[in-house]
Amino acid sequence: MYTILSSDIFAEKYFKMENKFELNEDVLRNAMQSYVDALNKKDIPGIISLFAEEGTVEDPVGSVIEKASDGLTRLVGALPENATFKLDTPIRTSHDLSGGAFAMTVELTLNDTPMKIQSIDVMQFNKQGLITEMKAYYGPSNISS
Amino acid sequence: MYTILSSDIFAEKYFKMENKFELNEDVLRNAMQSYVDALNKKDIPGIISLFAEEGTVEDPVGSVIEKASDGLTRLVGALPENATFKLDTPIRTSHDLSGGAFAMTVELTLNDTPMKIQSIDVMQFNKQGLITEMKAYYGPSNISS
Repeated sequence: MYTILSSDIFAEKYFKMENKFELNEDVLRNAMQSYVDALNKKDIPGIISLFAEEGTVEDPVGSVIEKASDGLTRLVGALPENATFKLDTPIRTSHDLSGGAFAMTVELTLNDTPMKIQSIDVMQFNKQGLITEMKAYYGPSNISS
Repeated sequence: MYTILSSDIFAEKYFKMENKFELNEDVLRNAMQSYVDALNKKDIPGIISLFAEEGTVEDPVGSVIEKASDGLTRLVGALPENATFKLDTPIRTSHDLSGGAFAMTVELTLNDTPMKIQSIDVMQFNKQGLITEMKAYYGPSNISS
């Protein structure tokens, strides 16, 4: 699934041509794991490829809701090379395969100051397993230095 | 805050009479912690008091969306006395105080079979700090025995 999800164009083609692809929990879980992996690699095209064309991001919740490609280019582009993303606990999916969520801890150093951000990211998926919505829940108290 | 949030009626009165209550991250975090505490105590009135009158629950995501008082009476009422709820990682809030999320592990024994359910619960709040929506994200693979 990682390979399929890593290319939007290939995924589109695959689903349209074959149309026998079955969405399951692994597709959702792999997409969320690939999201975390892409953050660790600062891989902007890779992370955008996990989203549907109409996908949106709100990071953090309470800030602006942006088109995923714009928001992720800005957010991932702003990450220092030293930023690491680690899951705190296993990824959660959902019974209807409409969404999932995961808790992660981000560690980075900005201007010689180490920082820790603890977020829970909640994803919605379309029937092709592409992310249509990402909301990152963390408040000021979830950020420490 | 726990005391205020533990009674819907008192909270309503408090906010209407004083109207100088300020919502902050602690209100949200305390409400979510009280939710976990009430689950551990199987305290149905206590858990319902954390919700707004119009509040809803969807547990798990993909099942029915119910009025909070109905859904929680059913869900908490069905819990075996031995069920325990533990946070996996600190509670997350949000910058606009509209919502929050937490990851927890539920352990229980049903018909002599120990079970573990790992959920991420996502909450929306009104301006009084009462929960308007709860969605519990967990799929079949997040349940183990």
